[in-house]
Amino acid sequence: MFSIQQGARMKFQLKEATAVLERTPAVLRAWLADLPAAWVRSDEGPDTWSPFDIVGHLIHGEETDWIPRLEIILTHGESRPFEPFDRFAQLEKNKDKTLDELLDAFAELRARNLETLKKLDLQSRQLDLTGTHPELGRVSARQLIATWVVHDLGHLAQISRVMARAYSDEVGPWKAFTPILHRRT
Amino acid sequence: MFSIQQGARMKFQLKEATAVLERTPAVLRAWLADLPAAWVRSDEGPDTWSPFDIVGHLIHGEETDWIPRLEIILTHGESRPFEPFDRFAQLEKNKDKTLDELLDAFAELRARNLETLKKLDLQSRQLDLTGTHPELGRVSARQLIATWVVHDLGHLAQISRVMARAYSDEVGPWKAFTPILHRRT
Repeated sequence: MFSIQQGARMKFQLKEATAVLERTPAVLRAWLADLPAAWVRSDEGPDTWSPFDIVGHLIHGEETDWIPRLEIILTHGESRPFEPFDRFAQLEKNKDKTLDELLDAFAELRARNLETLKKLDLQSRQLDLTGTHPELGRVSARQLIATWVVHDLGHLAQISRVMARAYSDEVGPWKAFTPILHRRT
Repeated sequence: MFSIQQGARMKFQLKEATAVLERTPAVLRAWLADLPAAWVRSDEGPDTWSPFDIVGHLIHGEETDWIPRLEIILTHGESRPFEPFDRFAQLEKNKDKTLDELLDAFAELRARNLETLKKLDLQSRQLDLTGTHPELGRVSARQLIATWVVHDLGHLAQISRVMARAYSDEVGPWKAFTPILHRRT
């Protein structure tokens, strides 16, 4: 295994986590709205996702994953395991939508979920509460929200990578200097 | 070596390339403006870059790399090698600036450079013209502009990764499901 270089870790703070979550819809809009379709629909081959698919996946997370799981933790604790998250449900559902519709839907759902989060006004004691992940076992509310943030960031990185790789041949000799075209992902 | 899965490659088109380049300043602003400093200054350890440093690096590219090199190709062809690009020049220079100043400077420089590019009105014959990279040898104007795009995308991916890894410990058991916390980069 490679070792991953690591800087100072941040300790979870709800306000800092929320600051990332509330920006993602605007980042996606600034990046993808009205972008030529060749970019929006580019992917990394069969069974990989385009930027369009990634926005659909983020919508599905807002609908079925983060806040619903948080509410299970707060209401049922570890006694009721989360529903498994279907990573592919959105592909069929969104195929006739436009990117603009998906960007709007994501922004609305995210804003609503952050409003719910704000109203919960979670204190440290509640962030420590735990639930049962169907595969990972015991997880805390704090870990769930931290994962929500990292999940956003992971998919922003994926959009960068998918788009960059569509130009793998076009950069010519510069390919040697562009790590995003080489990294195993 | 790992094999990298690859989707359909895009053929370089100036209009599609420009569509990405013109969006990057707004993406950075939507993402980083007024974000808590803990995120903006997070890094991956000694001699790695924070989101703040990355914006400074992008500014330096606008000042010394892309358009200046394009102009060398158009004016001197292969007879005059490019100046080597100093990847670290900006760190000292920007240390007393605010992120907002850097975001503004980048947006201005990028807009000006895209205006220059537009005025050049490059046709296929000019995109085929070649220059001499000090390490890579012969490169074309087309490859230079494609690399400009991929360079933007690579640094957007880097921002995602740096921020995500600041939460490496906070996600708890979910670390197993978040590839951005594991990939060698």
